[in-house]
Amino acid sequence: MSEDLKIGIAGLGTVGAGVVRLLAERAELLVERCGRRLEVVAVSSRDRGRDRGIDIGAMQWFDDPGALAVSADVDVVVELIGGTDGVALDSCRAALAAGKPVVTANKAMIAHHGASLAEAAEAAGVSLGYEAAVAGGIPIVKALREGLVGNRVERVYGILNGTCNYILSALSVSGEAFGDVLAEAQRLGYAEADPSFDIDGIDAAHKLAILSALAFGSLPDIDAVYTEGISHITPLDTTYAAELGYRIKLLGLATVTDHGLEQRVHPCMVPLTAPIAQVEGVFNAVITEGDFVDRTMFSGRGAGGGPTASAVVSDLVDIARGLRLPTFGVPVADLRSLPAATMAHHIGAYYIRLTVVDQPGVMADVTAALRDAQVSVKALIQHSHDLGDGASVVLTTHENREDSMLQALAEIAALDTVLETPCMIRIEQL
Amino acid sequence: MSEDLKIGIAGLGTVGAGVVRLLAERAELLVERCGRRLEVVAVSSRDRGRDRGIDIGAMQWFDDPGALAVSADVDVVVELIGGTDGVALDSCRAALAAGKPVVTANKAMIAHHGASLAEAAEAAGVSLGYEAAVAGGIPIVKALREGLVGNRVERVYGILNGTCNYILSALSVSGEAFGDVLAEAQRLGYAEADPSFDIDGIDAAHKLAILSALAFGSLPDIDAVYTEGISHITPLDTTYAAELGYRIKLLGLATVTDHGLEQRVHPCMVPLTAPIAQVEGVFNAVITEGDFVDRTMFSGRGAGGGPTASAVVSDLVDIARGLRLPTFGVPVADLRSLPAATMAHHIGAYYIRLTVVDQPGVMADVTAALRDAQVSVKALIQHSHDLGDGASVVLTTHENREDSMLQALAEIAALDTVLETPCMIRIEQL
Repeated sequence: MSEDLKIGIAGLGTVGAGVVRLLAERAELLVERCGRRLEVVAVSSRDRGRDRGIDIGAMQWFDDPGALAVSADVDVVVELIGGTDGVALDSCRAALAAGKPVVTANKAMIAHHGASLAEAAEAAGVSLGYEAAVAGGIPIVKALREGLVGNRVERVYGILNGTCNYILSALSVSGEAFGDVLAEAQRLGYAEADPSFDIDGIDAAHKLAILSALAFGSLPDIDAVYTEGISHITPLDTTYAAELGYRIKLLGLATVTDHGLEQRVHPCMVPLTAPIAQVEGVFNAVITEGDFVDRTMFSGRGAGGGPTASAVVSDLVDIARGLRLPTFGVPVADLRSLPAATMAHHIGAYYIRLTVVDQPGVMADVTAALRDAQVSVKALIQHSHDLGDGASVVLTTHENREDSMLQALAEIAALDTVLETPCMIRIEQL
Repeated sequence: MSEDLKIGIAGLGTVGAGVVRLLAERAELLVERCGRRLEVVAVSSRDRGRDRGIDIGAMQWFDDPGALAVSADVDVVVELIGGTDGVALDSCRAALAAGKPVVTANKAMIAHHGASLAEAAEAAGVSLGYEAAVAGGIPIVKALREGLVGNRVERVYGILNGTCNYILSALSVSGEAFGDVLAEAQRLGYAEADPSFDIDGIDAAHKLAILSALAFGSLPDIDAVYTEGISHITPLDTTYAAELGYRIKLLGLATVTDHGLEQRVHPCMVPLTAPIAQVEGVFNAVITEGDFVDRTMFSGRGAGGGPTASAVVSDLVDIARGLRLPTFGVPVADLRSLPAATMAHHIGAYYIRLTVVDQPGVMADVTAALRDAQVSVKALIQHSHDLGDGASVVLTTHENREDSMLQALAEIAALDTVLETPCMIRIEQL
């Protein structure tokens, strides 16, 4: 048997404690599976005294994660501090510069600094593992970088944020308002006290930028991800979606179009019959479309101590087994810099919900605006729900360019008879 | 860049031609991704002259796959001949003995001879890749051996045969008889001229034995797989299943019970709401339940030239990249020999459909037989469909031991008022 792999963990939150627990409870299994012992020899966190339900007594304690990262006693550094920059990034850079492989669950850091970190890993000849950064326990990084390696990926998309998926599932079941469902999610621990990172789509955007880089062999480009959250979705929309044969999901989608790499995160109406429509609650799912393999779908828990620890440990086992691959599947120098396709060029179908004055002539005004922008309507339905003086108008379109759609929507929003900001949700025929 | 990886392919059917095509069409992509060229230098097949839509002019031709397997010009041997023994097995043994890694899509061979082939690979210090042997394009071998390596797997199950899944999907949609649906599947190329390998569950059993070995670190034990096919399923059963909130799927399921390793392949009623119920047509799906990661599901195309070639190439790329792992995740000497749990000990719920004489007292006889065997009934429904003189009785049970269920069924079948062999389908609450 080879020597023990000596692990230093920076950050002992839910995931860090989960990794310590997994490595302790499955120690013998892992020795069998990788021929050497994976031992946590050092830890660092903010609060040394906190009870985490794990025994860290035998591990060296570092107040400073940067010192842990370069400690001669540590073979590999696990970064679970979080945050785009700051101490997380500094620790990873320090570890790589010291020639130590790094494993991280930090999606924000990889999305923003993945290329420069990959360069540092390459220069040092060590691994940078981030399986835990995308879709929690689902081994999607390995699938894209190894399992589907023979394919040119044509599209990758998925449900990348469990908080949003839980909220959208709950909205459609309970019919309660967004704020109430969010509060309940917070109470259950499915949403953070400050939920904006999740519900504004930022977390999903980080993950999508990483998936895009892997799928298309391109530099991660988080700034090019069009990002829209879910806080404008109402129970009315989930009801109309169901009537129309759709379910609302926050998706991240990436594909290479004639205008460049299109990366977008926003609520989508997906057909009830699409496999991804069935992914409910806090589960995540990633679908890849490869030219030889066709559609593959991977689903599982996207967050939580156990699933994320499972992903972190898979990276550690790769390192213990001596498996090392380029961070994004090809050497950094070979990563392409793809132009970003803007949403103005996006072509898709749309669902629009308007709250209008319930009087004759409104439909004529709305359809005139659509005609002027050359938006082709598929269906136009007026619902006289109990909205005080107003009524709901729901329309769906055929495929149109997004700039045309937005132009029509601006005209419609300006009509005196339209009472609220129109709600637009993109329809994806997956 | 390292030297080219020189590949010899034995067997040029749909999959072999797919591999040649993929390696030719994605040659530059693969050089980027593995830093060296993957080149097919030799091929062997039965019919040299057949038009396969691929250019094999520059490759060395072998009439004898055994000679290809030991050729000094070949670095790695891809076996796509098929068959449990014979020339496929001989070629693989010869290649491994000559110190060459082997990649195969041959599930029958791995299920029956996996342990001895793994020993030979280990002795030679080379890889034995078989990603393509289970669930076609879905990278499930890699997921179990690497991506989920930190977990003790508690259960693995799935839809492992696309032909059966297509037929069962079509049965429930069309309402046609089994024979008609099978004939249509044959016409569409989804079922072989001799379909018994698929519809009798044998192919799924091979795949399940491989999945079990990977999931539980045990010796593949194909002889211990309880195997039942789908040819007794009628449109009546798919109709009743839908009424009861179920869908019928041929599943392979493996789990470690108090009585040993339970491996079974048979039709199941699964709740309509279970993710696996949504996997339709020729798609396969594998679900794993790990102690840390919880449930993960992988779905995709389980057969066909493109998807299977994708899996073969992923094994080739692992070899080109120098990644080598024990065949079943741990060294052969560490593989456990688990006792086989017999079906008599199986505990589960059951659906029973009887064709009975439509007269008073039948229900009393049936329920008496169930009581005598201490089978606990959940629901008992009499349908007076147009069955000539007969009526259908459908019952579902709570969880019972299978030997009790079979005892009751034998008594019921012997009743004068029961006209046909009872149909029993196990219910799985997945």
